[in-house]
Amino acid sequence: MNHTPPLFLTARWVIGPDGPMENGCVHIEDGRILGVCPRHEVPATLFEDAPNAEHRDLGEACIMPGLINAHCHAPMAILRGVADDMELLTWLEKGVWPLEKEFTREMTFLGAMLACAEMIASGITCFADMYVWSGEIARAVEAVGLRAVLSEGLLGFPTRTYGSVEESLALCRSFMEEFKNHPLIRFAPAPHTAFTTVSKQLVESYAMAGEFDAPWLIHAAETASENARVQELHGQRTIPFLDSLGCLGERSVLVHAVDLTDEEIEIIAARGAKVVHCPRSNWKLASGMAPVHGLAEAGVTVALGTDGAASNNTLDIFGEMRAAALGAKVREMDPTALHAPQALAMATQNGAATLRLPFSGTLAPGQPADLCVLNLAAPHLQPCHDPVSHAVYAAQGSDVCLTMVAGHVIYDHGAFLTLDYPALLDAGQEIAAHMREIMDRQERQRCEDTRPQDSD
Amino acid sequence: MNHTPPLFLTARWVIGPDGPMENGCVHIEDGRILGVCPRHEVPATLFEDAPNAEHRDLGEACIMPGLINAHCHAPMAILRGVADDMELLTWLEKGVWPLEKEFTREMTFLGAMLACAEMIASGITCFADMYVWSGEIARAVEAVGLRAVLSEGLLGFPTRTYGSVEESLALCRSFMEEFKNHPLIRFAPAPHTAFTTVSKQLVESYAMAGEFDAPWLIHAAETASENARVQELHGQRTIPFLDSLGCLGERSVLVHAVDLTDEEIEIIAARGAKVVHCPRSNWKLASGMAPVHGLAEAGVTVALGTDGAASNNTLDIFGEMRAAALGAKVREMDPTALHAPQALAMATQNGAATLRLPFSGTLAPGQPADLCVLNLAAPHLQPCHDPVSHAVYAAQGSDVCLTMVAGHVIYDHGAFLTLDYPALLDAGQEIAAHMREIMDRQERQRCEDTRPQDSD
Ligand SMILES: [Zn+2]
Ligand SMILES: [Zn+2]
Repeated sequence: MNHTPPLFLTARWVIGPDGPMENGCVHIEDGRILGVCPRHEVPATLFEDAPNAEHRDLGEACIMPGLINAHCHAPMAILRGVADDMELLTWLEKGVWPLEKEFTREMTFLGAMLACAEMIASGITCFADMYVWSGEIARAVEAVGLRAVLSEGLLGFPTRTYGSVEESLALCRSFMEEFKNHPLIRFAPAPHTAFTTVSKQLVESYAMAGEFDAPWLIHAAETASENARVQELHGQRTIPFLDSLGCLGERSVLVHAVDLTDEEIEIIAARGAKVVHCPRSNWKLASGMAPVHGLAEAGVTVALGTDGAASNNTLDIFGEMRAAALGAKVREMDPTALHAPQALAMATQNGAATLRLPFSGTLAPGQPADLCVLNLAAPHLQPCHDPVSHAVYAAQGSDVCLTMVAGHVIYDHGAFLTLDYPALLDAGQEIAAHMREIMDRQERQRCEDTRPQDSD
Repeated sequence: MNHTPPLFLTARWVIGPDGPMENGCVHIEDGRILGVCPRHEVPATLFEDAPNAEHRDLGEACIMPGLINAHCHAPMAILRGVADDMELLTWLEKGVWPLEKEFTREMTFLGAMLACAEMIASGITCFADMYVWSGEIARAVEAVGLRAVLSEGLLGFPTRTYGSVEESLALCRSFMEEFKNHPLIRFAPAPHTAFTTVSKQLVESYAMAGEFDAPWLIHAAETASENARVQELHGQRTIPFLDSLGCLGERSVLVHAVDLTDEEIEIIAARGAKVVHCPRSNWKLASGMAPVHGLAEAGVTVALGTDGAASNNTLDIFGEMRAAALGAKVREMDPTALHAPQALAMATQNGAATLRLPFSGTLAPGQPADLCVLNLAAPHLQPCHDPVSHAVYAAQGSDVCLTMVAGHVIYDHGAFLTLDYPALLDAGQEIAAHMREIMDRQERQRCEDTRPQDSD
């Protein structure tokens, strides 16, 4: 990071490390937070001492930590809305898989760019991803200046990028090596699930995560049918099965964690494993309501994720905070369950801890300047008595007016500073038209396939 | 309505009466829809025949029917975020009631203006409201040019606006008389609940609704404890009790309808009573998940409402559509439950039928030109394969770029055409500061009240 002049960001509210502060100031230098203080304490002399200092007042707005999307499949952004309201298997077999089969590297890159644009515009400064051709995703993330924890999903059968289990592990290792000193991107091992991988992949990738001090990402206990499948294959449900392999520990990140027994919650807590809660994806696919209040009460660190845009259908962590809080209350029939500060912590500090990021997810001194700014001048955010309440219960992703990663402003009042949005929109529309052709062709194919049988 | 020149609105998508149309045109004259047609069918001669016709292209956007918020307490907008994460009784006794007690007529008006601004900016063209000093709300609605079904809530005890049950009914009648020929506003009787009113109010106001062909609005079966309270007072749960009074019929609008038995669902369906589903308010207060899929399957017309901003905390029907669909899927553990077109119908046609509005809630020929336009050029709405999916599963209230009521544009790309938003924002902030003083004073009072006991 080059030396940059000091920047003083002021706004009506700042959500600092000790909670909301009215009329606050965030002091940033060299990509890091130097401090948060009341606006009136910013002495005029500071500016005299640093004549090149910049002061920017954001007005009726709230400066807050950047949000962390702890689970995504970025390129699926181009599948947004192609298949809703379907049974999971129909959704995969008729909606998602036939289209994903047609993805090219370029489509993967463009899908990731579109997802990055969406995340940047809604205040996300870091995300975790699982997909194939993750090198294309890294290329997109690098281009736009986001932080990310990426992974080439491990599967027990050949994919576009590897042919054997050994190759899958070698590819994983090579990505982890390649990015181990990258300033913004890291790679992590990510077995897809306990039933679509082989045990060797689970055990060896878990060891690899330890070697690189990386998180180990896995879809786990998403549905009752997943647990039934794992039981059938391995004689145990997902959580005890992973535990029996020695794969549950502080670096394990269990994505979804919906279908859990009380005993499994205790095992997760005892091992120090983390959970990524993806409420809106779980509800849309009717996987169930995760016991997120019970997990938090048991001491488990819970982060928030959007999952891919094919099952959500947006990458908006504000929406997930609200869904997590409202869902926990109605699931437990307790309006005090999962209060607003807790939801915000899930989307910030807990995300950082879950992904083993080398920072806290707050605006504390010394932390990287990863932040977003909510414009509060919209009628649905007025009046503002408590910006944490508004962030969780009233804000929408599109209320974000500024996003900064490592001290760099990458989104500013509608303008994307690190990507050509009109060009991306054009490319996205071309891909959409192409996808529609594919869908039409597949639909015709399905009709032709069934016609001869009809006439039999 | 004066004669106005023909207006042709074109956009990438139009959600017409027969579903989505790509590259469509909406033809509007004299405040009404004349028709929806493919854009290429708009002949150049039309413009030649009507040289004063206006053509406005909205680009990468979707023109859709205006949304109907079938349940609100508009002035509570100024209580947004003052009391979250509390037990219902604590919320009312410590959060809401002490503050509402301090409301003045002017605060009621300003709260309603703020709520109207929020609704206009998120594509709502008509709302139903229950509050006191509803004349102030009418004044706000009239000023901004929205449609509304308003009511002075009926309670079995004295309020600020009446002293006796007879006076409550007389006040209700006088409002209904005063507004019966108003072009945009109607009044309806609205007993608060079955346990905060007397039976005379229920029966007589129900008759009054019949006399004026108005809907009859009541909070009903919101919680298990409401049903227990009604059982205690009247020997029956809410639904059978209202039925025994003859108050369940086509004009009955049961707001919430959360705690229902299967038999009660059948009674509601048999009587033709309507339901207003307010999912996010119900979840936040941990009232429960309404059996909205079961109600719809039984043939009940279900509309959507936000409830007041103290329990939601926004007045955004896009959010309620999404919550209704996701909530129904996870409640029934069936991803096909409450599909996107059904959620959109709840927010439009069903709202119109529920509130007995003299129109259909679609863009069909002859209907009033009540519509909103979603800007689809944002990354979270790209690509767009199906605008109905996007409206329900991806859009946010703040994606609305234009709102039209009865042919009048009242909101246009951030500009409020019928209100002075900066002045409203200033007034709102003054009220917020005033509210905070009240809260601080009440907090000090509570501390003083408890101190002597502590020292005893
Ligand atoms: Zn996933
Ligand atoms: Zn209500």
